[in-house]
Amino acid sequence: MNRSLKLTLQYEGTEYVGWQRQATGISIQGLLEDALRPIEGAHVDVFGAGRTDAGVHALAQVASIVLTVPIETGPLARALNAVLPADVRVVDVEAAASGFHARFSAIGKVYEYRIVNAATISPFVRRFAWHVVPPLDVAAMRQASDFLIGEHDFAAFQGAGAVVKSTKRTIHRLDWREGGGNDVPLVMRVEGSGFLRHMVRTIAGTLVQVGLGRWPAGRVREILDSRSRSSAGTTAPASGLFLVRVLY
Amino acid sequence: MNRSLKLTLQYEGTEYVGWQRQATGISIQGLLEDALRPIEGAHVDVFGAGRTDAGVHALAQVASIVLTVPIETGPLARALNAVLPADVRVVDVEAAASGFHARFSAIGKVYEYRIVNAATISPFVRRFAWHVVPPLDVAAMRQASDFLIGEHDFAAFQGAGAVVKSTKRTIHRLDWREGGGNDVPLVMRVEGSGFLRHMVRTIAGTLVQVGLGRWPAGRVREILDSRSRSSAGTTAPASGLFLVRVLY
Repeated sequence: MNRSLKLTLQYEGTEYVGWQRQATGISIQGLLEDALRPIEGAHVDVFGAGRTDAGVHALAQVASIVLTVPIETGPLARALNAVLPADVRVVDVEAAASGFHARFSAIGKVYEYRIVNAATISPFVRRFAWHVVPPLDVAAMRQASDFLIGEHDFAAFQGAGAVVKSTKRTIHRLDWREGGGNDVPLVMRVEGSGFLRHMVRTIAGTLVQVGLGRWPAGRVREILDSRSRSSAGTTAPASGLFLVRVLY
Repeated sequence: MNRSLKLTLQYEGTEYVGWQRQATGISIQGLLEDALRPIEGAHVDVFGAGRTDAGVHALAQVASIVLTVPIETGPLARALNAVLPADVRVVDVEAAASGFHARFSAIGKVYEYRIVNAATISPFVRRFAWHVVPPLDVAAMRQASDFLIGEHDFAAFQGAGAVVKSTKRTIHRLDWREGGGNDVPLVMRVEGSGFLRHMVRTIAGTLVQVGLGRWPAGRVREILDSRSRSSAGTTAPASGLFLVRVLY
């Protein structure tokens, strides 16, 4: 009997080519499919809610699978964790409705982008944040963030090489939580209907230009209107990005 | 002119043989002495407040040095961080009184021992905690901890191979902060006049035996009285131990 299952995963992306299986390198999807094969006795397709890029982390990525083998959810989680590397963990497995698909059933996602804004970055967060040394004007970054909330054409914030039907997306919330010292990051939390390739990192890179005083806050509105990637800031490093939650 | 300086350091101990220079392997002391040599133009002895073991971390280790070269504290910190690996950071350099010695001037130290008590451990804390799966009885651990507070002969909690004049030490505080989920550790915080080799990790290992229900809380008092290392619990893993603060 076919059973749909929903897996919740945490991973540190540092050592991986990203979520999606690639021609070379180790992917999270590939690790999970390799771990599931001996359990199911056949290849199992693993669908992820978000295609996190190389180096991007997940606090709660969601994946969907269909199994025929009769194994309960607890033992399945333990069997997977026994063979997966320690930087990829299955934190929950639960039964899902037939037809559940981690990506197509999702109605929204929450990401965080973490920045340590201090002279040094602590050894304990260096893999999990972007280190920006000059002091950032967080008030200006918040002001600029407001231009991005709502439904917009985010073409200017899309990474090269992506092919999508529409570059319209809706951002429901975008806020900043202040950090402190060299080990408590400044955190941008963004919730939206969906995100284009590199969109969160390009938003972070653009807002940091504002925070450094290089661009006025209003420039963000002009970048949106331009629909041109070349007008936005650089893509912030993958190390600072976390997929925090998938909404269904 | 000779100047005494006080350095405050953070490091992730995972990749190192510990604070102290050894015949083989990379030590934190060795890294600092190697980084200081070209600045001073001669060998500089670096004295650390605590000889953290292989794999043990520091949130604020203190080291003392004497320099003759006229370099200001800010530029010195930046010069050191430019050549030190990213998992060792100089977070502060300040002038110290002549004769200041990081170890001999210290009047106390604070350590934390971190435990993740859940079925899985998050990829983000796996290098910075001990993973204990069965549920721990923290109330029993607190009760057992109370036997250790005050001045005692801690011979039973001293690692093999250490040679010290006296095994008497005073623990001023020992408390537990509860954790949650697979990423917020249960934290033992201990403040004392000084600590014997492996003492904090042996205390953690012993109290976990109590938390697992294998030993009653009162057993800790018997272990103290025995003054025999073989009666105490195993030495908890280095990954969970942090030197948090040195008191002067």
